Amino acid sequence: MEHGYTADKQAYLRRLSRVEGQVRGIARMVEEDKYCIDILTQIAAINKALHAVSVGLLQDHIGHCVVDAAAESARTGNPEIVNTKVEEATAAISRLVRS
Amino acid sequence: MEHGYTADKQAYLRRLSRVEGQVRGIARMVEEDKYCIDILTQIAAINKALHAVSVGLLQDHIGHCVVDAAAESARTGNPEIVNTKVEEATAAISRLVRS
Amino acid sequence: MEHGYTADKQAYLRRLSRVEGQVRGIARMVEEDKYCIDILTQIAAINKALHAVSVGLLQDHIGHCVVDAAAESARTGNPEIVNTKVEEATAAISRLVRS
Amino acid sequence: MEHGYTADKQAYLRRLSRVEGQVRGIARMVEEDKYCIDILTQIAAINKALHAVSVGLLQDHIGHCVVDAAAESARTGNPEIVNTKVEEATAAISRLVRS
Repeated sequence: MEHGYTADKQAYLRRLSRVEGQVRGIARMVEEDKYCIDILTQIAAINKALHAVSVGLLQDHIGHCVVDAAAESARTGNPEIVNTKVEEATAAISRLVRS
Repeated sequence: MEHGYTADKQAYLRRLSRVEGQVRGIARMVEEDKYCIDILTQIAAINKALHAVSVGLLQDHIGHCVVDAAAESARTGNPEIVNTKVEEATAAISRLVRS
Repeated sequence: MEHGYTADKQAYLRRLSRVEGQVRGIARMVEEDKYCIDILTQIAAINKALHAVSVGLLQDHIGHCVVDAAAESARTGNPEIVNTKVEEATAAISRLVRS
Repeated sequence: MEHGYTADKQAYLRRLSRVEGQVRGIARMVEEDKYCIDILTQIAAINKALHAVSVGLLQDHIGHCVVDAAAESARTGNPEIVNTKVEEATAAISRLVRS
């Protein structure tokens, strides 16, 4: 199954592997009793990295799944196909904003 | 000019007028020396209301501007039309997430 | 009643009055059928302004209410006084992060 | 060196190890071409978990480092000690809110 992000799959895997390393780095800071404020700075950096991944996935999703569904709805005259995709994407954006 | 939100224009105006009243309410709390924590609770409520407005506008935008551009790109075979819209929407999502 | 923000009261009122104007500006954009993406950019600016106000109020609150409670707890040997304030401030931070 | 979070160190390490597993889980979803929206839902869950860790660390930090500095400032009559801590904590809150 092809997805919007398939073309960039290796880049996403590299970014996630870097985030995994950052989380391990924070655990090490806690173990070594590092200063709380420095740990918080690192957590903020992870959140930013994950937000960038999320926004990238959303761009790929809208640019492929939503756009393909829009073309299919235009071709078939059935708006349901794209409406479902738009609602799903909006719900994901809403979860992202509150996370 | 028609936009995605045009159909819900009156509802958006009502929500924004409510937010305006909430901001005035906070100014009144500051003037009357209300407790900081209670003011912060009200500001969080405004941020939530504005996020809901933003997510609504994004849904309308994706469901109309982006979808229409996708149909036009499919019809004309020119992907540029929709690609520009997708990038613009993604940039807006990214600003929203960081705001 | 004195609060942490009392010294900066006029500055807070000016910032809130500016936010109120920004909210009215957005309502005007909706009324005049401005482009959704431009409206979203303005809402992100308001969220940022309100976050700055929130962080300012929190700084004043921690620097006065929490610090005064800590001094009183140290003087009286009763940790309850400051613990309540710390929990309250943390709850406000948590609401702010999710808003 | 003792920090605010020292008493809960094992609990923090368990939470971070769970987050690390969640990040690996997302990488697996990307590898197995799972649906973008489902990946986004998992990333939102990680952001929430990391925010909870951040808020916990901040509570421990304010409740210990800031409170201790406040008591020392009260004892020595030197406000600098606590002011520095309050500014540092506020900067961390500000980074957290924007992350």
